Amino acid sequence: MNNPLQKIREKKPLIHHITNWVTIYDCANITRAWGALPVIAYAPEECTDMTAISSALVLNIGTLTSEIIDAMILSTSVANEKKIPVILDVVGVGATKFRDDMAEKILDFVYIDIIKGNYSEIAKLAGEDTETKGVETTSINADPVKVAKGLAKSKSSIVVMTGKEDIISDGKKIYIIRNGHEQMGSIVGTGCMAGSIIGVFASVNSNYCDASKDALCYFGVAGELAAEKSNGPGSFSVNLYDEVFNLSDEKVKNMMNFEERQG
Amino acid sequence: MNNPLQKIREKKPLIHHITNWVTIYDCANITRAWGALPVIAYAPEECTDMTAISSALVLNIGTLTSEIIDAMILSTSVANEKKIPVILDVVGVGATKFRDDMAEKILDFVYIDIIKGNYSEIAKLAGEDTETKGVETTSINADPVKVAKGLAKSKSSIVVMTGKEDIISDGKKIYIIRNGHEQMGSIVGTGCMAGSIIGVFASVNSNYCDASKDALCYFGVAGELAAEKSNGPGSFSVNLYDEVFNLSDEKVKNMMNFEERQG
Amino acid sequence: MNNPLQKIREKKPLIHHITNWVTIYDCANITRAWGALPVIAYAPEECTDMTAISSALVLNIGTLTSEIIDAMILSTSVANEKKIPVILDVVGVGATKFRDDMAEKILDFVYIDIIKGNYSEIAKLAGEDTETKGVETTSINADPVKVAKGLAKSKSSIVVMTGKEDIISDGKKIYIIRNGHEQMGSIVGTGCMAGSIIGVFASVNSNYCDASKDALCYFGVAGELAAEKSNGPGSFSVNLYDEVFNLSDEKVKNMMNFEERQG
Repeated sequence: MNNPLQKIREKKPLIHHITNWVTIYDCANITRAWGALPVIAYAPEECTDMTAISSALVLNIGTLTSEIIDAMILSTSVANEKKIPVILDVVGVGATKFRDDMAEKILDFVYIDIIKGNYSEIAKLAGEDTETKGVETTSINADPVKVAKGLAKSKSSIVVMTGKEDIISDGKKIYIIRNGHEQMGSIVGTGCMAGSIIGVFASVNSNYCDASKDALCYFGVAGELAAEKSNGPGSFSVNLYDEVFNLSDEKVKNMMNFEERQG
Repeated sequence: MNNPLQKIREKKPLIHHITNWVTIYDCANITRAWGALPVIAYAPEECTDMTAISSALVLNIGTLTSEIIDAMILSTSVANEKKIPVILDVVGVGATKFRDDMAEKILDFVYIDIIKGNYSEIAKLAGEDTETKGVETTSINADPVKVAKGLAKSKSSIVVMTGKEDIISDGKKIYIIRNGHEQMGSIVGTGCMAGSIIGVFASVNSNYCDASKDALCYFGVAGELAAEKSNGPGSFSVNLYDEVFNLSDEKVKNMMNFEERQG
Repeated sequence: MNNPLQKIREKKPLIHHITNWVTIYDCANITRAWGALPVIAYAPEECTDMTAISSALVLNIGTLTSEIIDAMILSTSVANEKKIPVILDVVGVGATKFRDDMAEKILDFVYIDIIKGNYSEIAKLAGEDTETKGVETTSINADPVKVAKGLAKSKSSIVVMTGKEDIISDGKKIYIIRNGHEQMGSIVGTGCMAGSIIGVFASVNSNYCDASKDALCYFGVAGELAAEKSNGPGSFSVNLYDEVFNLSDEKVKNMMNFEERQG
């Protein structure tokens, strides 16, 4: 029986983040709320040592610089050697050429286990003709399921595409996640948090496609429960942390809402 | 009829921030709470591209470095070309010579549409003999209305001077804003948020003096409503986000409290 | 009579931070909640000027780089000259060699008045054979009271060792603090906040050993009061700020829970 939350709380995995400066606290704090331990280290002198003692590496290019990208590549190369799962959130790809280039650079130099982004970010990475409005998704012309599956196949990675419905693919299987609540989009940071949470779940489940599905369902359930009690983005954020902390595998099981398609 | 909130929610303007690391999340999150889209990008390789697709540029020197100042100047020069409004919050001017010099450098190299600071920061910029206690305002000897108006005239910019009463001037007209609540000073970040909010309102109203007046009145009203329900700075911060999110143009109209003086 | 809170609110001391990017807002905001004024400045061109006008300097190596360490040393040398108390939080010492080396570098070049860390960080600094899991404490073999006292003696500094029971020593006297609540460990940042709070209390009490004891008792009391009203880490964080803001010296006096041992 699959009880990811119980496993996380028992293992207390260390989740190494090299992430943006906007939502860095939220990424750390939500990691802690699940029972895992966040750590941030990006200096070139230590980032690989921190990766080596961690159970997952979460990368997020939301406020990238070329030095940060170098640290990400250094850390990922150690993670690849040690079979530590690496999640890359390609925030803002499609908005500037620099983001497109840096995301490509990472994907060229090292192996990313789980590539995550919103619809327009993933579509751009997959070579579709699209743009991202800053770090916000825009509508895409292509079929999102095909885009996710195609990119997963070409990169031999798990692809996680977040939006109203989240789409996850390993190149063959497709998960469509229908948990979550529109209030999650009323605060900054839920997208970045989702990357951290996928890292947390991947640290206790070597099937990263299933781990990503569980992560987004669990987080979505917490969002649904929090939304019921909230009057706006301030109280929603508070309730979201409380609900994540008070989740149990049993509670989530009855509320998971996803579809599985075989390719 | 002037309905700035409706316009913001319809346009969903992208607001590019190059700001400090302390309140960066709050600047982004409050931008989102009004219905606008925040983005932060400061790498020299991309900051100008991000400015070019944005509807306002918000600069804040709260944790400045010389590299960040260079990125601000690069981005502002693009904003100037494209007639995108630029707001500069001169946090801590008067506290160290470096801040004074860097604020001057920006104002020398590029054009700032809206210069914002607290009483002692603006007085220092205007050449008055004053000091700032870290990033906190100190009392000034000069008449604040004259200081704001004089600086606005000499720089051909809008000047926004925040304090117990906020003073706004375009060099001729003066607005004195009496909305707001002392609890807004009990948390870190409301001053920086005000800069972001001015950026949001200026992105939908090309009269930047009126946009600044609306921004501070609307934010002040939200602060007043939040304070009624709060027991301290923790709950005040939560309620402030909820109130901003739930404002409407109609609700604010009856609560706006400002005086207009013609120069 | 010792009324630290009254003194803080009267003096409104400026507390200069050079700290990590994860909890920087919380360090600033909790400083404000006590009635003190936070400021962050790390550029080499201004950090010493900011220290010179401050009443305490709080250093935290949670997301260190070699440049940040240089800024810390520059600022501390000014603080040493001017007899401004310096607190160093050795976050993550024991996790990577770089952190060990940089903490040593600071302690070799300048004088730190108050060295703060969790059990495994302080044990590592004291030369014990131990490791830190990222930035989380691990159990140590040595007697923690002996470790704290020994390090205090060898460095001629106050040592603050945080954990289930906090241990404070000046090399002779020992305080064991039993205030606090396990919910303080459910959110990221309470450890870093404790460093800021010690800075705030040391700015109004030149007996830094007693100031550290007061800081941790007062913060612990706020944590206990907040925990009673909270449903999880989200509401706990909100209530913690409210409780700190609403504390009084009288309220805390009846709830302080510490033991004093003479060496």
